[in-house]
Amino acid sequence: MTRVFNFSAGPSTFPISVLEQARDEICEWRNTGMSIMEMSHRSHDYLSVAEEAEADLRELLAIPTHYKVLFLQGGATGQFSAIPMNLLGNKTLCSYVNTGIWSQKALGEAKRFAKVQESASAQKDNFTTIPDLTSWDVDPNSAYLHYTSNETIGGVEFQKTPDLFKIPLISDMSSNILSRPIDVEKFGLIYAGAQKNMGPSGITIVIVRDDLIGHAHERTPPILDYKIQADNGSMLNTPPTYNWYLLGLVLKWVKAQGGIEAIEAINIRKANKLYRAIDESDFYSNPVDPRYRSRMNVPFRFHEQTLETHFIEGAKLAGLVNLEGHRSVGGFRASIYNAMPESGVDALIHYMQDFAKAHG
Amino acid sequence: MTRVFNFSAGPSTFPISVLEQARDEICEWRNTGMSIMEMSHRSHDYLSVAEEAEADLRELLAIPTHYKVLFLQGGATGQFSAIPMNLLGNKTLCSYVNTGIWSQKALGEAKRFAKVQESASAQKDNFTTIPDLTSWDVDPNSAYLHYTSNETIGGVEFQKTPDLFKIPLISDMSSNILSRPIDVEKFGLIYAGAQKNMGPSGITIVIVRDDLIGHAHERTPPILDYKIQADNGSMLNTPPTYNWYLLGLVLKWVKAQGGIEAIEAINIRKANKLYRAIDESDFYSNPVDPRYRSRMNVPFRFHEQTLETHFIEGAKLAGLVNLEGHRSVGGFRASIYNAMPESGVDALIHYMQDFAKAHG
Repeated sequence: MTRVFNFSAGPSTFPISVLEQARDEICEWRNTGMSIMEMSHRSHDYLSVAEEAEADLRELLAIPTHYKVLFLQGGATGQFSAIPMNLLGNKTLCSYVNTGIWSQKALGEAKRFAKVQESASAQKDNFTTIPDLTSWDVDPNSAYLHYTSNETIGGVEFQKTPDLFKIPLISDMSSNILSRPIDVEKFGLIYAGAQKNMGPSGITIVIVRDDLIGHAHERTPPILDYKIQADNGSMLNTPPTYNWYLLGLVLKWVKAQGGIEAIEAINIRKANKLYRAIDESDFYSNPVDPRYRSRMNVPFRFHEQTLETHFIEGAKLAGLVNLEGHRSVGGFRASIYNAMPESGVDALIHYMQDFAKAHG
Repeated sequence: MTRVFNFSAGPSTFPISVLEQARDEICEWRNTGMSIMEMSHRSHDYLSVAEEAEADLRELLAIPTHYKVLFLQGGATGQFSAIPMNLLGNKTLCSYVNTGIWSQKALGEAKRFAKVQESASAQKDNFTTIPDLTSWDVDPNSAYLHYTSNETIGGVEFQKTPDLFKIPLISDMSSNILSRPIDVEKFGLIYAGAQKNMGPSGITIVIVRDDLIGHAHERTPPILDYKIQADNGSMLNTPPTYNWYLLGLVLKWVKAQGGIEAIEAINIRKANKLYRAIDESDFYSNPVDPRYRSRMNVPFRFHEQTLETHFIEGAKLAGLVNLEGHRSVGGFRASIYNAMPESGVDALIHYMQDFAKAHG
């Protein structure tokens, strides 16, 4: 096989060693005579896999014991509904920061359940920056403050946790969880679909502080009710067992890289060299405020739109795929999550420089 | 590897050929240079996989064009909420038939959204039979009539579709879909978690008639809203892509067996020989009304409770695993879904007969 460098925004590239281990174990897991995906979720063997994944995630992110870790279905989009349904309690107001398409989706869904305060918005800057925290308007009566820590489409990322406010802080970390250290205690709730930095699609992590559990609206579907899922060890019903197993393999891989700090150092190096290549060229440009450029998703473009197809086709021939920008914004985007090897970024830079030389 | 015969009720045994194909393709799918699970769900390659699975399911079950097929997350338990949320419309009443633990769970969840009429109940018979259709009390003002086509714990299965009533018929077919022909046109909606007869856990099929879509309660989470999911080809958000792919492989396997009629013939043979072995022995017994015995889940017991552990341990040594009955009922249970080879049933019967001889 000729493995490509896959810059897809999600689902996205896996560490090849994880895929190889999954391959070696898929027909039979550790002399059990069966595949992981054939096991009852209540069996001793399967529970050991599920619990080890939770323990590894707790270790990697230093999750305190007064936080629950839930393994759910439905993606971040399911959480867009679950968060107001679970966290509003007796309140009627919640606050959202608008930094791009994903925060807008979360905010739009919350409006069906509550009054929503838009505490800050980067819309007037076309979502290329993050409004200064001193300008945020956060009502202390809000049930919570929600923000999106990394916008995969705009390529904008918070470099610090906006923890100035006294209400529970909620973050959609789907596209940068495990890519940098976070202090979980600054948050009321963190959620993330797995399909960027943690594994396959079809499983969603929710890390939630104990005191925020147990206030769900009476019509919350039980599969999205944090208390019911917490009380059942995320097994109210059959969980996505194979997805959970694969997520566990990715966590082991992160640990084998040296943990989050080691991964972060690589991510900084990867992102810096790609942005440098863009900035030093007259051919490519990235529109994002350098203070908030994403380490995970790097959008870029050049001026000759007529050459875009040519760029994509040439990249494919060089084994560099899924570089198209999101259909809503065009241009190009390189998603360089944890599992993208540095050699993939190097190859992309090399291709970009050659292309610029030939067409610049 | 020594493959066991795995009688787990779900997640449950796969066809080994499906696991082997998944193994061969997991690192790279068809010269794409990447795994299926690394592909964007909106890529041409992945969409071809997703669409082929839908086409195969439509072909196998002869699903008419005025039914949508949805591939969702959240399991049947998610559908217990989604069904009243989507189908009540302006009505305030729905009807449920109570044939065991799973229909009770569906019924209990509906009570949070509407008045529920229990149209029939097998409770007085300890859920060992199905009340005669002529005794069912179905209010014509109900939004729908719900029943569970196969009770995995009690081992009770409808042998005919109860289509005498004029309101939309809804069925939870999680544990017997694809095991026998059904006439989809008799139903308003059919739903099934995949993890018994269709694939891995983490993906749920909903087959729903067009006119029943579009009446969801305003606070239905979009991930569970049939209209939103139908309008988005089940890709409102990232679907469980690898689960969908595996489900597609299982559908190809069913087709290769000769389709549903051929599978049914094997299932009848497997179930008949196991029930015959139980009935012809003085040692084993099955409590279910022979008219409604499940072809998929065969509960049985014997009188010497002290020998139960011995039976399970001996079975394990013979490569026959997960024969424990559900923790709520005890005894034993052999789940013999489509993917359980007839040789597995033969081996079980052989073991049961030897055990009875030694201990009877």
